[in-house]
Amino acid sequence: MSKPKVFEKPIGVKDYLPHAGAKLRQIERQALACMQSWGYEQIITPTMEYYDTVGVASSTSDEKLFKLLNKRGTTLVLRSDMTAPIARVVASLLKGAEFPLRLSYHANVFRAIEEEAGREAEFFQTGVELVGDPSPEADAEVVALAIASLKAAGVDRFKIAIGHVGFLNGLFQETLHGLTDAQDGLKSCLLSRDHVGYRERLKSLQLSEPVQRELEGILRLRGGQEICDQALQVSRDATAQASIQHLCEMWDVLKAYGVSEYVLIDLTMIGDFSYYTGMTFEGYAADLGFPVVSGGRYDNLIQQFGRPAPATGFALKTTRILELIGDDAESGTERVLIGYDASGRAKALAEAQRLRSEGTIVVTEKMSIAETDQTAQLAADQQSWTHKGTVYTAFVPFVQQGGA
Amino acid sequence: MSKPKVFEKPIGVKDYLPHAGAKLRQIERQALACMQSWGYEQIITPTMEYYDTVGVASSTSDEKLFKLLNKRGTTLVLRSDMTAPIARVVASLLKGAEFPLRLSYHANVFRAIEEEAGREAEFFQTGVELVGDPSPEADAEVVALAIASLKAAGVDRFKIAIGHVGFLNGLFQETLHGLTDAQDGLKSCLLSRDHVGYRERLKSLQLSEPVQRELEGILRLRGGQEICDQALQVSRDATAQASIQHLCEMWDVLKAYGVSEYVLIDLTMIGDFSYYTGMTFEGYAADLGFPVVSGGRYDNLIQQFGRPAPATGFALKTTRILELIGDDAESGTERVLIGYDASGRAKALAEAQRLRSEGTIVVTEKMSIAETDQTAQLAADQQSWTHKGTVYTAFVPFVQQGGA
Repeated sequence: MSKPKVFEKPIGVKDYLPHAGAKLRQIERQALACMQSWGYEQIITPTMEYYDTVGVASSTSDEKLFKLLNKRGTTLVLRSDMTAPIARVVASLLKGAEFPLRLSYHANVFRAIEEEAGREAEFFQTGVELVGDPSPEADAEVVALAIASLKAAGVDRFKIAIGHVGFLNGLFQETLHGLTDAQDGLKSCLLSRDHVGYRERLKSLQLSEPVQRELEGILRLRGGQEICDQALQVSRDATAQASIQHLCEMWDVLKAYGVSEYVLIDLTMIGDFSYYTGMTFEGYAADLGFPVVSGGRYDNLIQQFGRPAPATGFALKTTRILELIGDDAESGTERVLIGYDASGRAKALAEAQRLRSEGTIVVTEKMSIAETDQTAQLAADQQSWTHKGTVYTAFVPFVQQGGA
Repeated sequence: MSKPKVFEKPIGVKDYLPHAGAKLRQIERQALACMQSWGYEQIITPTMEYYDTVGVASSTSDEKLFKLLNKRGTTLVLRSDMTAPIARVVASLLKGAEFPLRLSYHANVFRAIEEEAGREAEFFQTGVELVGDPSPEADAEVVALAIASLKAAGVDRFKIAIGHVGFLNGLFQETLHGLTDAQDGLKSCLLSRDHVGYRERLKSLQLSEPVQRELEGILRLRGGQEICDQALQVSRDATAQASIQHLCEMWDVLKAYGVSEYVLIDLTMIGDFSYYTGMTFEGYAADLGFPVVSGGRYDNLIQQFGRPAPATGFALKTTRILELIGDDAESGTERVLIGYDASGRAKALAEAQRLRSEGTIVVTEKMSIAETDQTAQLAADQQSWTHKGTVYTAFVPFVQQGGA
């Protein structure tokens, strides 16, 4: 057997050591439990999909897809998100299932990356899709569930910014009719949140004074419910008006959920994905420069798999949430060390079983009587102590007493 | 955007629909909780590894590794098990961690398959590695933990067969000294449990009568503790004797764990992996022709990554456990439908939140008063009923009462 030459793993992928691994699983478990209590049921899809089906339909740009060939020479991709695979399942295996469908997932997803950029090539997402309901009620449900899931995962301080792709599309259609390049340029500035670039581009277009002012004004359309009222005055375009109406209705539902304190309307927000068709949202945690959740409505995706259906959903970036809340070991966890010799073994292992069934973590170890005494001395009068690199909170010896 | 032509997924991979997906996660969660209570801590490693490191060290034969090229032209593999990646971590990131290390994992693993054979190219494993302890005590611990994990995952009836690669190696060394081809042929018969083929090969070797009888006799070395005593008589070879001694000591510990009823000794058992160096075991559930768990001792692997260390462990085949225990929805699960109109919305959503915080599954839906009446009638006097394809156990309406 040839010997490996390096101890390295590929660039862009990570190991999660004990505390981090357990914590990431805990974030996932708590978010999924929350989603389940809202009626969302978990599905699991394969890591590999056909490039020609899910790969092409996914929102990830072609050069970022991780491609490989199977033995027949067909191109496969490592999934880059879960939305396209779920769309495939909704249109095939779940073809007969009635709408609305509430589905949840936890999965690792992949992006082929510029190795130099230091971005992650594999990361985890926990999310939901609500399929078959076009209403503002449905959009508000997924936003409220995103808020509940973030809280369940241990994120306390965050804001959800909600936008609507229809507002900008309508407004640009009205003011920059036919100027596709100009529209695209402005949108790409907004996507990268480059407001300076947006203003410069606007100026370079040499628009009439009122249009110029109007398009600059949208940068200030950021705030609470009052933004809806202001935005209704900005554009007469039917698409823009309907979009704002949709956000107003969502706001009413979010108020009824009691979560409007977490939400702000940001009409300059454009979702990362080109396939969003309606409201989009992103959640930002305090002290973190990137979103911990993103989502929105994508009414055109599932029909690409043959079953036209409106849909809305989101994905929590659990690896980023882990960075946020940290991977320290749970303080206060009981961890018992049971030491025994051959004579005390059966009693020791029975006691270990009893404690484990009560939820206590127990490690057992065969020891000499001398080792047992040493360990007992070390453990005495200490809340916690370290034995062979592990922190314990109690020591229970089962050894032959005295010199019988 | 080009349209996908098919709704297919690649051959050899699976979708797990709602009930199956949730059940598979439950099996995983329960097994991991059991492992945690024994002091095993979860780690997560990347899906992709370098072929030259983990790929080469893994127990999977080269043609079964799923290979791909990264943008630099370096060959990567999709991990085929978790043992080799964990060995890499133990020898690198955990280089400073004291032994013994108790590690657990849950992961999907990949095998490039003959597409025609209908085998799975991706499946799930939940397992542990106990690193740094060569004792029979450590081997007994992982076998006892495998038993506890199977029970925790919901498997009731099963048997664990334990063997030791040293016994056969020693015996063959003694009786078939230098006849490497003959040894390999006999081992491959035992590996595929082809006892007829084993007998035929034995005959064709034209051995002396006593040796012939001895090598045929090992097919009967299958049973309880008494097999240890019998086996000690079979071979005088030091390796064979030491191996049996190790199994005898393991048996004593397993008796102390109170689990010997689940265990049998089977000295004809050869682990699937060529890298096992000591005891090996497999668990078979009633009515299932393939193992639901397999494991053993592999003392030579981690040194390939630069840190010599004995190690023992196992992997549960959770996808097979799912086949065994079925993916029916949990009966007895409460699922509440709350219907509301705009006037009752805030109260309805508050009640949903209250019920969810108590662990009840609640779906909310905006309905007209007529729909509410219809649903209430359907729900009345029924333990459970179906609304839009989902089974509910209770209906709670929040609508404007009367025509005020």
